[in-house]
Amino acid sequence: MDSGEERHGEGDYGDVVTMEAVRELQAGYTWADVASLESPAEGARVRVRGAAAAVRAVGRRVAFLVVRQGAATVQCVVAGGGGMARFAAGLSRESVVDVAGVVSRPREPVRGTTQQLVEIHVEKLHCLSRAVPNLPITVDDASRSEEDVARAKALVHVGQDKRLDYRVIDLRTAANQAIFRIQCQVENVFRQVLLSEGFVGIHTPKLIGGASEGGAAVFKLSYNGQPACLAQSPQLHKQMAICGGFGRVFEVGPVFRAEGSDTHRHLCEFTGLDAEMTLRDHYTELCDVVDKLFVAVFDHLNTACAAELEAIQRQYPFEPLKYSRTTLRLDYDQGIKMLQEAGVHVDAMGDLTTEAEKKLGELVRERYGTEFFMLCRYPSAVRPFYTMPCSDDPRYSCSFDVFVRGEEIISGAQRVHDPELLAAQATARGVDVGSIAAYVDAFRYGAPPHGGFGVGLERVVMLFCGLGNIRKTSLFPRDPKRLAP
Amino acid sequence: MDSGEERHGEGDYGDVVTMEAVRELQAGYTWADVASLESPAEGARVRVRGAAAAVRAVGRRVAFLVVRQGAATVQCVVAGGGGMARFAAGLSRESVVDVAGVVSRPREPVRGTTQQLVEIHVEKLHCLSRAVPNLPITVDDASRSEEDVARAKALVHVGQDKRLDYRVIDLRTAANQAIFRIQCQVENVFRQVLLSEGFVGIHTPKLIGGASEGGAAVFKLSYNGQPACLAQSPQLHKQMAICGGFGRVFEVGPVFRAEGSDTHRHLCEFTGLDAEMTLRDHYTELCDVVDKLFVAVFDHLNTACAAELEAIQRQYPFEPLKYSRTTLRLDYDQGIKMLQEAGVHVDAMGDLTTEAEKKLGELVRERYGTEFFMLCRYPSAVRPFYTMPCSDDPRYSCSFDVFVRGEEIISGAQRVHDPELLAAQATARGVDVGSIAAYVDAFRYGAPPHGGFGVGLERVVMLFCGLGNIRKTSLFPRDPKRLAP
Repeated sequence: MDSGEERHGEGDYGDVVTMEAVRELQAGYTWADVASLESPAEGARVRVRGAAAAVRAVGRRVAFLVVRQGAATVQCVVAGGGGMARFAAGLSRESVVDVAGVVSRPREPVRGTTQQLVEIHVEKLHCLSRAVPNLPITVDDASRSEEDVARAKALVHVGQDKRLDYRVIDLRTAANQAIFRIQCQVENVFRQVLLSEGFVGIHTPKLIGGASEGGAAVFKLSYNGQPACLAQSPQLHKQMAICGGFGRVFEVGPVFRAEGSDTHRHLCEFTGLDAEMTLRDHYTELCDVVDKLFVAVFDHLNTACAAELEAIQRQYPFEPLKYSRTTLRLDYDQGIKMLQEAGVHVDAMGDLTTEAEKKLGELVRERYGTEFFMLCRYPSAVRPFYTMPCSDDPRYSCSFDVFVRGEEIISGAQRVHDPELLAAQATARGVDVGSIAAYVDAFRYGAPPHGGFGVGLERVVMLFCGLGNIRKTSLFPRDPKRLAP
Repeated sequence: MDSGEERHGEGDYGDVVTMEAVRELQAGYTWADVASLESPAEGARVRVRGAAAAVRAVGRRVAFLVVRQGAATVQCVVAGGGGMARFAAGLSRESVVDVAGVVSRPREPVRGTTQQLVEIHVEKLHCLSRAVPNLPITVDDASRSEEDVARAKALVHVGQDKRLDYRVIDLRTAANQAIFRIQCQVENVFRQVLLSEGFVGIHTPKLIGGASEGGAAVFKLSYNGQPACLAQSPQLHKQMAICGGFGRVFEVGPVFRAEGSDTHRHLCEFTGLDAEMTLRDHYTELCDVVDKLFVAVFDHLNTACAAELEAIQRQYPFEPLKYSRTTLRLDYDQGIKMLQEAGVHVDAMGDLTTEAEKKLGELVRERYGTEFFMLCRYPSAVRPFYTMPCSDDPRYSCSFDVFVRGEEIISGAQRVHDPELLAAQATARGVDVGSIAAYVDAFRYGAPPHGGFGVGLERVVMLFCGLGNIRKTSLFPRDPKRLAP
């Protein structure tokens, strides 16, 4: 028996059931976060709790353990041989461990961990939660870029479906840790900018009587015996809040669409960022808000979230989004003209196909050097009946879409606030006015000119980071086939 | 014909259809908000848009118009006789008008408007949206306190149901304008405090496969042919986010409960403020977060929202909430003892009835001078199977409730993170482990000790403001009977 065997007693390592027990076993050490382990002085006695991301035995005397907390990792050295090194070597990956030990500077920077200039010399090691030995997917495999997998055929490729089946493990990758921190920041900047512009945050009901505005793509249910459905958009209630005297409102909340087709950009449930506001002179006041809002979001991500963007880049390489200080606004007519000049066949008064939108995005990037722009004054015929026609030419409407990298990300418009015009436009489109009576009636008690817009949070993150599949930016996505986990 | 008749031409007043038209008609005036009308100098030429809250003709030559924007009102004087005064006198209340004129100081402070030291001498007056002449409820009637109505029997009492039927009008009262601005602030402080404490904001799915955790009170629906339900709580997915490596998460989102019984404090859809976090040593770390969070919320409301609280007070008088810098924590046992000493019959290992909770709130207020406190270490038998038992005595659990004015407002606990213990506790409670396999399995890939809590946003505002009915703090409430508007 060597000195190492003696150095670690039985209470120094093992499986423990409760955090209260390990607190006693590791008394005298100070809690630390892996991400800030460079702060404690060399020689400090610290405790960290994290996942055993990697376990490697070197002979029978030493074991190296990489402990991960969020996206941060640190090397922990179990030296001196004996029971503790064997215990460490026997830990299944992803088990949750408490490591107590001394902060040390390694002779050479550690490779493969985020903490490269610091490691922990382990004095106590306890396992609070054993992971099953054969994980369905590993964090390492789930973290590889497609390029890495393509280069070395022996590497396991983890498909999108399998990732989502075992999302609890998949979320532990550095890229996923970054994606959802970025998503939180997008929402936060959205809220902060709108609050500073005098908007009030509201919550409108998701349970709606009857069959909602949208027809087919609606989830139906029974509400204590009454027919009900899930809101496909908060628009009606946002508008009612405006009629209720709140001059500017926004909402962040789930939006439900019973989509039938699987695409890279549609989900059956997503997080809507919605705003609605009274207008003074012109619907382009909406564009002014969108402009300020999204330039602030993009600026914030590029400055405050540089580390997160880098983490995403490592697994999913993308070009930084090109955008300008003041967002380019084109009229629909101008967009049509650009497409026609490029030889694309488009109907000047019809809607743009996804391909035409993509092409227009390319043309705009070439000519104006931006991948974020607004297309205004859509033909009335391709917008919903509640869209306000332009006062100078009713064939066009007070509406706009916003594009990022050639994909629509925001849709906005001034709404018809006059109940008679609203009813007339509904009738002209073949919408039964009786079925929308409650909506029309909301404007009979005095309604100011107003408009709004809606954005999908997942789509903002997907397009900003060029991720190519909206399932990557939804924590637990719901698509036509997937309802779990 | 007097000079007044000549002063106002036909283009100076009338009904207009579009805001573009009125912009031309009222060119040369600068937009102003009613709330900040004291800023422009006397003699400034301003434009305001708002609702005609009151219309009063004085003879045929003068009309007084009160214009309301949000909760702010200003008197507008249409003098000089002639067509414009008649046009003003003929406006239906709540119609939306554009008033252009000169800012003036009245000889005496104006009574009954929020702007008392300033009024507008009207030069142009256009109506953009006519309200129906016979409103189903009036803002004045909806604004009265119960005391006012009781004092003068001739006054109309607007019942809760009628208010909600015509919520678009009801929301225009000063109290409602204040309630929902306060609600927005509660959410905002909740988010800001948690973000500053390292929490990440997430969004979990509301569409859940199968029949959810909760049994009866669940809304069921078909999800492209699969049985599904609406989430009764984000707890499972919050816990999965923790297992996914996000150390601290929060969510603000709708929670659905198919409640059968009508009470003053339950809704079928409400806004949940939920948090979940890894724990280091003890579940009371959750209480520390709750403490910091709610003291910050209450402090913010009392300082930053004084005007809103006053507006609510005027219609719904209430005593300011008594709370202390550090929130009182009592063990369940102590609470039981206080109730027993006060002669209340309670089972020491059973749950508290709503009446017992109310009584305990009174006893705590008398003894400790606070109406906000935590009750910790509930008996395990009265908490869900996934609650962690206390390590020193498993008859008690690592759980707590928080009370405001004698009503439960927050429920929190450490969760069982060990899959075997979880399965055993489920079985012991008669829960079929097969039916919760996906939940149990989430903890098989390494799960850290963790816990969380949930709060209803509407309940926070209701109890802080002593409003007595949760329908008052939901923008468009959903109760067992109400699914509209």
